[in-house]
Amino acid sequence: MSDTSDRRFQEQLAVYAEVAVRIGLNLQPGQQLLVNASTDAAPLARLIAAEAYRAGAELVDVLWSDPGVTLARFRHAPTESFDLHPTWRGEAFRQVGERGDAVLYLHSPNPNLLAGQDPEKLRLHQRATDRAMRPYNEARDRQRSNWTIVSVPNYAWAASVFPDLPTEAGRRRLWEAIFEAVRLNEGDPVAAWNNHIADLNRVLVHLNGRRYARLHYRAPGTDLEVGLPEEHRWMSARFLTDRGTPYIANLPTEEVFTSPHSGHTEGTVAASLPLSYGGILIENFGLRFEAGQVVEAWAESGYETLMGILATDEGARRLGEVALVPHASPISQSGLLYYDTLFDENAACHLALGRGFTFTVDDWQGKSDEEIAAAGINRSLTHIDFMVGSSEMDIDGVRADGSVEAIMRGGEWAF
Amino acid sequence: MSDTSDRRFQEQLAVYAEVAVRIGLNLQPGQQLLVNASTDAAPLARLIAAEAYRAGAELVDVLWSDPGVTLARFRHAPTESFDLHPTWRGEAFRQVGERGDAVLYLHSPNPNLLAGQDPEKLRLHQRATDRAMRPYNEARDRQRSNWTIVSVPNYAWAASVFPDLPTEAGRRRLWEAIFEAVRLNEGDPVAAWNNHIADLNRVLVHLNGRRYARLHYRAPGTDLEVGLPEEHRWMSARFLTDRGTPYIANLPTEEVFTSPHSGHTEGTVAASLPLSYGGILIENFGLRFEAGQVVEAWAESGYETLMGILATDEGARRLGEVALVPHASPISQSGLLYYDTLFDENAACHLALGRGFTFTVDDWQGKSDEEIAAAGINRSLTHIDFMVGSSEMDIDGVRADGSVEAIMRGGEWAF
Repeated sequence: MSDTSDRRFQEQLAVYAEVAVRIGLNLQPGQQLLVNASTDAAPLARLIAAEAYRAGAELVDVLWSDPGVTLARFRHAPTESFDLHPTWRGEAFRQVGERGDAVLYLHSPNPNLLAGQDPEKLRLHQRATDRAMRPYNEARDRQRSNWTIVSVPNYAWAASVFPDLPTEAGRRRLWEAIFEAVRLNEGDPVAAWNNHIADLNRVLVHLNGRRYARLHYRAPGTDLEVGLPEEHRWMSARFLTDRGTPYIANLPTEEVFTSPHSGHTEGTVAASLPLSYGGILIENFGLRFEAGQVVEAWAESGYETLMGILATDEGARRLGEVALVPHASPISQSGLLYYDTLFDENAACHLALGRGFTFTVDDWQGKSDEEIAAAGINRSLTHIDFMVGSSEMDIDGVRADGSVEAIMRGGEWAF
Repeated sequence: MSDTSDRRFQEQLAVYAEVAVRIGLNLQPGQQLLVNASTDAAPLARLIAAEAYRAGAELVDVLWSDPGVTLARFRHAPTESFDLHPTWRGEAFRQVGERGDAVLYLHSPNPNLLAGQDPEKLRLHQRATDRAMRPYNEARDRQRSNWTIVSVPNYAWAASVFPDLPTEAGRRRLWEAIFEAVRLNEGDPVAAWNNHIADLNRVLVHLNGRRYARLHYRAPGTDLEVGLPEEHRWMSARFLTDRGTPYIANLPTEEVFTSPHSGHTEGTVAASLPLSYGGILIENFGLRFEAGQVVEAWAESGYETLMGILATDEGARRLGEVALVPHASPISQSGLLYYDTLFDENAACHLALGRGFTFTVDDWQGKSDEEIAAAGINRSLTHIDFMVGSSEMDIDGVRADGSVEAIMRGGEWAF
């Protein structure tokens, strides 16, 4: 009941719904909208439905899931039944892809929900879900659908971020942190987002114009050179559907990113924030690269988990993403660790071990898998972000002719 | 949070889930279960999922809906769009019918939710829903699926039943009333239900053996004779699937019922409880019948609404159901008006204006629509229950030879 008792909170929630529908999805009149939500997210889902209809949606429906029902299945259903997936859930998504409609994901992470459950159940469940979602995911890859992810606190997530607060206070505090991160506290959030996207676009235009051959990172504990594919393209989370509708695939978003060349990383990097992986915290860790590959790793805690990540496959010891986030990002300024990639990756410059993005290669739609791999894109099955940025980080761009230009100084854009 | 703070309440909720799955559905090992629930009902839905897996369910999934999302549609979507229905919702049900699986409806009535909305939207919405549900409803009519309805309080419903209580206290009080009505407060609720069903069966065997030609009701304000079709059969809410699984289509259930002959009612009846219809309360009303048809009606309040019901179609002025409920029924003893048919019809002997039940005619599956009508079954499009029973009601059965036998005395079984 506390959600309904606070008028200012309700107003902010309505603005959050507006930003999700207008800025994130950029929902077009006559589109249908499928909202994918946990039952935890019902108050926001209702506001999103109202806002989507105001934006001209023909039909809004919510495909709900519930963490308690999921947990009951893992606790009580036999392993072999996990090959089953309710086909109507995949069918709901398939129809969205077929019609070119929109999907809004209300992301309410509950990282420890399935801790301790049978890994075979988890594997079968993930495989069955992937299979059910394939038709929509393929339509999404062909840019048939505008979609976005926004986050919704729940008690379990809030307890991870604010372990010292009582449950309701923690959840409220997490709401406040999310509202700040998605720029709701600025006078006109829609205008703030339009300005922010224009800023990210200026960064993209600049970086794509310079065609850097490699990036040079320097910070305490870090002296790293990361080679970029010749045909690399910097991107933001702003995409275009095949009908030309721009949308932003997640809110917040602060990064510009591309895929590095998986064979051309040299030197040492120190993580600037802990990495939360499978419920284990890896702290004060670093990596040394030679010819693109990790040849040494260290960690103050969680070393075995880090070794496990690196052993996933051959590509897990190589980089798959370089992302630049200024230290002035609102998420960075919050000083919080969210234990959720959607936030933590937008708090600092980061790298990822593992799989790179096909779509950051110029003209990727016309290239074969072999050509993508030959361009230097990491083909690992995993993708693990870790944070390296701070107010002490300098980054240079090095062009093919050896000339050096400042990209970041003291964690901020330098061009 | 109050739902999780009270251990005894949690225990009762778990027993309610057990009774719903074991007694209501009688879920069979290897069946899949589709739960149809409002997001309000999440705590119970989780317990039902766990109980269904314990009973051997292969897969439990919940098809959720949310009253706030529904209301947003009525408020903001254009009228012509109400012809649309998310096809995946109908598809989820169609698959249940095809596989012979089970459906559990968590009924959480919110009678005033759509008060004041455009009647044309309501009409289109109902038509689109009926169309989407048709494949499952047809499978259900062929007894392909075991299904049951159990109720879940929400704040709006609780406020109707307990207008003087604060919201949370009202909801808790309504839970207690429901727990009492479904016999959870007896030592062994499962055994209590088995006994109760055996009692109802004894009543059915007796009544079906007597082949009464008509019933004669006497109470203050009531002197009514209701003719029964020659081929009538008395039934309870306990049905059998085509694979021989017995199940109970709603909990609570206290009634035995059949369809009267629509042309053979004579005399006067006084309602013993108010009738809530479309948000209007019809109080202290009565009807006079000649040759099966209402020829006079009166009401202390809600007279125009009563006239509206009677004007729906020709059959709305004739009876379609006679149901017998002893005054000792736990729902009757609660003294509450629930504003919901599932409860109120199980509180007292009742009649219904409008459509009769095809399946109370012997060998109905082998009969044409014309033969069903010729048997005296009312073919109206409406069906409105109203309560006539009390501790002052006597009912006699009159056989074809004119002999008279006591069925009820002072509101209780007399045989």
